[in-house]
Amino acid sequence: MSKHTGFVKGKGLLVVLSGFSGAGKSTLTKKLLAEYDYAYSVSATTRKPREGEVDGKDYYFVDRETFEKLIAEDALLEYNEYVGNFYGTPKEPVLGNLENGKDVILEIDVNGARQIRKQYPEAVLIFVTAPSARELAERLSGRGTESVDVVIKRLTQSIKEKDDALSYDYLIINDDLEETAKHLNSLIQDQHMRLSQQGKYLDDFVKEMKDLLASLK
Amino acid sequence: MSKHTGFVKGKGLLVVLSGFSGAGKSTLTKKLLAEYDYAYSVSATTRKPREGEVDGKDYYFVDRETFEKLIAEDALLEYNEYVGNFYGTPKEPVLGNLENGKDVILEIDVNGARQIRKQYPEAVLIFVTAPSARELAERLSGRGTESVDVVIKRLTQSIKEKDDALSYDYLIINDDLEETAKHLNSLIQDQHMRLSQQGKYLDDFVKEMKDLLASLK
Repeated sequence: MSKHTGFVKGKGLLVVLSGFSGAGKSTLTKKLLAEYDYAYSVSATTRKPREGEVDGKDYYFVDRETFEKLIAEDALLEYNEYVGNFYGTPKEPVLGNLENGKDVILEIDVNGARQIRKQYPEAVLIFVTAPSARELAERLSGRGTESVDVVIKRLTQSIKEKDDALSYDYLIINDDLEETAKHLNSLIQDQHMRLSQQGKYLDDFVKEMKDLLASLK
Repeated sequence: MSKHTGFVKGKGLLVVLSGFSGAGKSTLTKKLLAEYDYAYSVSATTRKPREGEVDGKDYYFVDRETFEKLIAEDALLEYNEYVGNFYGTPKEPVLGNLENGKDVILEIDVNGARQIRKQYPEAVLIFVTAPSARELAERLSGRGTESVDVVIKRLTQSIKEKDDALSYDYLIINDDLEETAKHLNSLIQDQHMRLSQQGKYLDDFVKEMKDLLASLK
């Protein structure tokens, strides 16, 4: 294991990013992936690819039968059905990356996060929000691509998600994208210092200390 | 409440710093207090002042009767008896600082930390260690002020403290003092983003969102 200032780098961290619609979690995720060393988990889905979407990069596009097989084989860390389509996180690439010491980012919703927490309690759950409700509304309507009805629906949804948000580990307010991405990266990296990540360091330490004391006596 | 990038500053954090003897937690604490904006909790003790120690700065020096009164009145966050003397953390100044949004650092041992966890579950418990057992032994014997027997006793103690260390939130390896102090400060500041600290933000957010939606309809 390599030594870093502050902590011993061991297994990777599983990081779940969720947030209110319009809070900017997708942009933040893209920025983290572009500027820092994270693995991104590509989801599997039964929905048809949109123009420009690449299989294996944007999603793994599979048919319903294949998806149901993945569920039956417990090959997904979490999955959901949304407007008639399945979406899920294939387990194997995530666990492989974690074993290799790589931190993995999952950008999923509150239902998925709940499933992750059960299957993988060491995961770090981070919820992204805007500085205020007004700012969130302005960002959503400012996109200009959604009707007022859709904006209202999404804002109403954010009220419902509040109780789920309370079960996350951290809440980060996305005010300035550059600053928030930096902050988010430092928050994630600090989680390597969690005792749950550093148990092996302490075991090694005690073993070394016992040998040392034996040699002194 | 003032807004910062990343989080809303509300109540202060109670930060407990413990660590193996020789890991450098006192030096780290001094550095944090000198360079960042923390309140330090002055302990009360029944031991006699040493030369140069100032009452109210290094310790509150009190007699045994006064200390026992503090215990009886539940005026201490934690206390211990060590080589015939009492040591404890007066509750009121700590809670006052936290209410005023000031982060408070307690440099106490694993027994005190256990009591803090019970009385104040939101506290952040950080354990400081050296990069290796050998390094810890070298630091302790390098002081030149302790006999080999005392060094061996302290190293043996560190093995006993390992299980207590496991119940802390974070473990930080004090490799380079400057770097570790910076890292420690960022780790502490990030804890303001804990959901347990940001519940009020979410309440305010939902209230604002409901008003906003009502005005849109």
